[in-house]
Amino acid sequence: MSIEPTPPNLENDGIENDVERVSADFDRVHSLCEILEPAFEQIENGTPLEDAPLRDKLTELTVLLSELHPADVAAVLESLPPRERNIVWILVKPEDDGEVLLEVSDAVRETLIESMDKDELLAAVDDLDADELAELADDLPHQVVYEALQTRDEEERAQVKAAMSYEDNQVGAIMDFELVSIRADVACEVVLRYLRRFERLPDHTDKIFVVDENDVLQGVLPIRKLLVADPEDLVENVMAKDVVRFRAEDDVEEAAQAFERYDLVTAPVVDDGKRLIGRITVDEMVDVIREESEADMLNMAGLQEEEDLFAPVWDSVKNRWTWLAVNLCTAFVASRVIGAFEGSIEKIVALAALMPIVAGIGGNSGNQTITMIVRAMAMGQLTDTQAGRLLKKEVGVALANGIIWGTVMGAVSWLLYGSLGIGLVMIAAMTLNLLLAATVGVLIPVIMEKFGRDPALGSSVLITAVTDSGGFLIFLGLATLFLL
Amino acid sequence: MSIEPTPPNLENDGIENDVERVSADFDRVHSLCEILEPAFEQIENGTPLEDAPLRDKLTELTVLLSELHPADVAAVLESLPPRERNIVWILVKPEDDGEVLLEVSDAVRETLIESMDKDELLAAVDDLDADELAELADDLPHQVVYEALQTRDEEERAQVKAAMSYEDNQVGAIMDFELVSIRADVACEVVLRYLRRFERLPDHTDKIFVVDENDVLQGVLPIRKLLVADPEDLVENVMAKDVVRFRAEDDVEEAAQAFERYDLVTAPVVDDGKRLIGRITVDEMVDVIREESEADMLNMAGLQEEEDLFAPVWDSVKNRWTWLAVNLCTAFVASRVIGAFEGSIEKIVALAALMPIVAGIGGNSGNQTITMIVRAMAMGQLTDTQAGRLLKKEVGVALANGIIWGTVMGAVSWLLYGSLGIGLVMIAAMTLNLLLAATVGVLIPVIMEKFGRDPALGSSVLITAVTDSGGFLIFLGLATLFLL
Repeated sequence: MSIEPTPPNLENDGIENDVERVSADFDRVHSLCEILEPAFEQIENGTPLEDAPLRDKLTELTVLLSELHPADVAAVLESLPPRERNIVWILVKPEDDGEVLLEVSDAVRETLIESMDKDELLAAVDDLDADELAELADDLPHQVVYEALQTRDEEERAQVKAAMSYEDNQVGAIMDFELVSIRADVACEVVLRYLRRFERLPDHTDKIFVVDENDVLQGVLPIRKLLVADPEDLVENVMAKDVVRFRAEDDVEEAAQAFERYDLVTAPVVDDGKRLIGRITVDEMVDVIREESEADMLNMAGLQEEEDLFAPVWDSVKNRWTWLAVNLCTAFVASRVIGAFEGSIEKIVALAALMPIVAGIGGNSGNQTITMIVRAMAMGQLTDTQAGRLLKKEVGVALANGIIWGTVMGAVSWLLYGSLGIGLVMIAAMTLNLLLAATVGVLIPVIMEKFGRDPALGSSVLITAVTDSGGFLIFLGLATLFLL
Repeated sequence: MSIEPTPPNLENDGIENDVERVSADFDRVHSLCEILEPAFEQIENGTPLEDAPLRDKLTELTVLLSELHPADVAAVLESLPPRERNIVWILVKPEDDGEVLLEVSDAVRETLIESMDKDELLAAVDDLDADELAELADDLPHQVVYEALQTRDEEERAQVKAAMSYEDNQVGAIMDFELVSIRADVACEVVLRYLRRFERLPDHTDKIFVVDENDVLQGVLPIRKLLVADPEDLVENVMAKDVVRFRAEDDVEEAAQAFERYDLVTAPVVDDGKRLIGRITVDEMVDVIREESEADMLNMAGLQEEEDLFAPVWDSVKNRWTWLAVNLCTAFVASRVIGAFEGSIEKIVALAALMPIVAGIGGNSGNQTITMIVRAMAMGQLTDTQAGRLLKKEVGVALANGIIWGTVMGAVSWLLYGSLGIGLVMIAAMTLNLLLAATVGVLIPVIMEKFGRDPALGSSVLITAVTDSGGFLIFLGLATLFLL
């Protein structure tokens, strides 16, 4: 773990922005990879390249990669197709391997681990902390995990096992065991002397945890306070007693929300006896927030999980399979609804041309509603009592939109087909379908959440299903009733 | 600004999780608000309530609110409809007003500021730092900003004006002027003595900035290193020289990505002469990440901006107006496409029932593609050279899906309508429309980004437009060619 992020070469490049510099490095990596791609087999086998210019490119790429922060290497790997990704992975410094594996997405991690043999994997995880090893463990071959554990001491083995016993969405799975704790009855000066005996303090140490003789959490001593405190002062007089703390079983998304609200950098994790067992840090929470919003976005669109950009075609097909199948089923239902009105369409063929307008606006408006609700739920802003009120409001919005846009399209249809009846049916059908969209747009996520499902999951596909079939039914039904 | 988040009552409630406690408080606030809502006018006018039980509820609510962290108060305000929101806002401690205004969303902030008079506003912003005042300034009446500036000293006025001169998406707009800087040629011991003279250190102080006599940034001294360093050591021997630093003109989203990648807590902001002018902190970056992913999600669904959940109906109508209009126009185009084939539909009415299936699967699959691309762009994983390759991959996925699902639906149509021709047209049309969806799904965001537009903006509406009109055209066109 790097003590301080140290992107290299910074002194040489003037005032150029770091982000721009990294982005330029990325472009260079991409073009070097493209040049080296034909030599993939030799590079993989470790055969020296015969072509001198190509050899130079390989050296340049190796140097460039060695200067990148492991997190940047991870980002580069994400953005490369399989063969070029493998070239980069072969050239990465072995001591960075573990860090990079921690940083990449699950999908890419799998492809990288597949390309490594047991010894490479053992070397990669050798430097990792217990919590980091636990994070990778699920993706590693059992034998590697077993052998990696043998090299650890008793305490670390217990930590790895503890961390692995939690679900991915629990605080315990991402908690960090490296922390500094002290007693309440010592002077600040003593604490400072104690800290000086460490070779290095854990990353993100913004507070020291104060515990009693049974490790029960008493409070926290923010470093900011320790630094300005009178050296004679006792820790118990300086520490904060009201502490935001978590249990290992808590939901990580709720923890992330607390970090966001209370601007935390680290927070203690305690067991049922209030004993300090670990801590969580803001960098993990940032990842949780990013992943959570992404998952919502992907889920709404009907993608099962984050997908490796350059996954093999077949993997992508499988990832998108389920929701496409659901979509086809719902489209088939909508098609049967239309089929039931084939007689009406034969008589007034204009109905066929107008019906997608009614279905479309319902889908669009329903998606707007459902997106708002999913977002409010993700922010914890929506309680049960609120759902009823929101429904009322959304119905109001739908009514307004229905009357406005319904009238517009009604008038257009009247002019186009010279039938006032068609115009009036248009207004009524659009308004009714918008009302349906609003109602279902509120109810789908609320019901999903009630049943413990992710409210974002395929919500877009579901709402479209309802507004399509519903829209066709309403429009063709009204037309059959009033126009035939 | 609170020194340390201090949710109250924590010692009394056993090991109960903080998040759960806050959520219970929220529910209580909601039910108290509902009870008090009828007495809204009296509470607003400050008239004492005659009804004793109601008075008790009001006291309970006031106490409850006074115990909540300002960020929690902000979340409560977001989740309440207008009148109840106003009751809560009246009861919030005046000294928390400024903090709460900083925490709420823009939409809610507007409604809160509208309900306050000049003196209340001046009192609310009185305790804020320069950067915080600048953040609120755009939403405050000019007169309030002017008078608030008069109470500040010259330096702070300059800071407020500097911060206000940046765009919302620039680092300068969210940078913090409160920081600690030292010289490189002093001993660590001296630094510790210097820090002890502060009454309090700025929030999130995880490093001290090292500058020369012209304020040019030399490096940073992480507190973690300072604490374990030999007191005699000079700062220049302990500090990190390779520093991730930003310019005030940099894009906040890029800065947030750097925070995420390099696990930063604070980072220096420098001007063109490398002089230190401020710093940015991880809590702001967390907000940026949250807002960015939300904006993407809202934009994709065709919502203009984050919407106050309980905005008046009319405001919501206006927020969703544009994209609904765009959707109607595109739906109208699709409708005219169908209109052009009315003759074919009159002859084979089954076409009317089958055409939404072709359009629907294209829209669904296109949305999957576009969501993936938008996400990759947001993560900075997609460069120009990659776009061409991705297109190839997506086309491959579309081809596979088209052949699989096209065959399924083709067989179903054949069975249903007893016409092999219809089945074959189904297969061809679905495959072609999926190919169209894949192509446009990659091209829309790439082109949007080329023209400096947000790739997420209304992308869902646009792709659906293409796959609808395209799907109808392909299916009805093929049917007309081969079946009539």
